[in-house]
Amino acid sequence: MTNSHANNSENLKKLRDLIKDIDYAMLTTVNEDGTLHSRPMATNREVEFDGDVWFFTYASSYKVVEINRNHQVNVSYAAPNKQCYVSLSGTAELVRDRQKLEQMWQPQLKAWFPKGLDEPDIALLKVNVEKAEYWDSPSSIVANTISL
Amino acid sequence: MTNSHANNSENLKKLRDLIKDIDYAMLTTVNEDGTLHSRPMATNREVEFDGDVWFFTYASSYKVVEINRNHQVNVSYAAPNKQCYVSLSGTAELVRDRQKLEQMWQPQLKAWFPKGLDEPDIALLKVNVEKAEYWDSPSSIVANTISL
Ligand SMILES: Cc1cc2nc3c(=O)[nH]c(=O)nc-3n(C[C@H](O)[C@H](O)[C@H](O)COP(=O)(O)O)c2cc1C
Repeated sequence: MTNSHANNSENLKKLRDLIKDIDYAMLTTVNEDGTLHSRPMATNREVEFDGDVWFFTYASSYKVVEINRNHQVNVSYAAPNKQCYVSLSGTAELVRDRQKLEQMWQPQLKAWFPKGLDEPDIALLKVNVEKAEYWDSPSSIVANTISL
Repeated sequence: MTNSHANNSENLKKLRDLIKDIDYAMLTTVNEDGTLHSRPMATNREVEFDGDVWFFTYASSYKVVEINRNHQVNVSYAAPNKQCYVSLSGTAELVRDRQKLEQMWQPQLKAWFPKGLDEPDIALLKVNVEKAEYWDSPSSIVANTISL
């Protein structure tokens, strides 16, 4: 496998394609005691993958406490029916920018944020992805790696 | 939500039911530099969930290097078609016991271990689960938590 820029931009396009069909990702964080926790998070399918992925969150939620102590996160996407799996390694930060919240808002998020953008505790998690890996065939032993 | 033993054993039964239908989990490990990596792993659907989950691995694979340095792992299961998501927090260890390998082997593992049990580098990862969380409805905001 070569690592030329041409291949990377092809892989990045591929990754965008893989992610845009997956509604929920598992976000893994590190707790104070070193244990790892994950939870499903609604993905923003309409946003192009540009090295950052975004999630809506309650600012006072426990995952934000974990992220404030340790920024390292993993975001994994699984589409078992397509045998497609993606792992994103990166760092997360809380963003409360009003304009960004409005730009990213989607009506289906009402399921988790019934008050919508009027929710005083609403915020965004921005994940700066440093490394992406994907598996897109049932018997892949080795991941396709993309460094960002 | 109460935390009585009755509820826990009901939840544990529920968790077994959720996991036994999911063929692949994402196993997240911590790298030396603190970054988090995940990869799809074939689950052993036939084994009852008793606080430990098992995966086949190559003993010389990178995830084993990571686990030897830092035992903390997360195992996440996603069944998007059923809106079911599970997070297991625990510690992993390498097991090379021949009898256990034979007991756990399943023919479909040939996809990743073409030599089967004749593979000299084959081994098991045993994950001692300390905490399990699951979400089984589309709008769950709060996880169902099971401490083991
Ligand atoms: C659907 C699927 C299932 C997989 N199951 C396993 C498995 O059971 N055991 C395993 O070692 N690798 C399995 N792999 C390969 C791993 O995802 C990974 O690429 C490999 O174990 C090397 O990971 P590492 O370099 O992080 O150690 C599977 C890959 C796919 C796509």
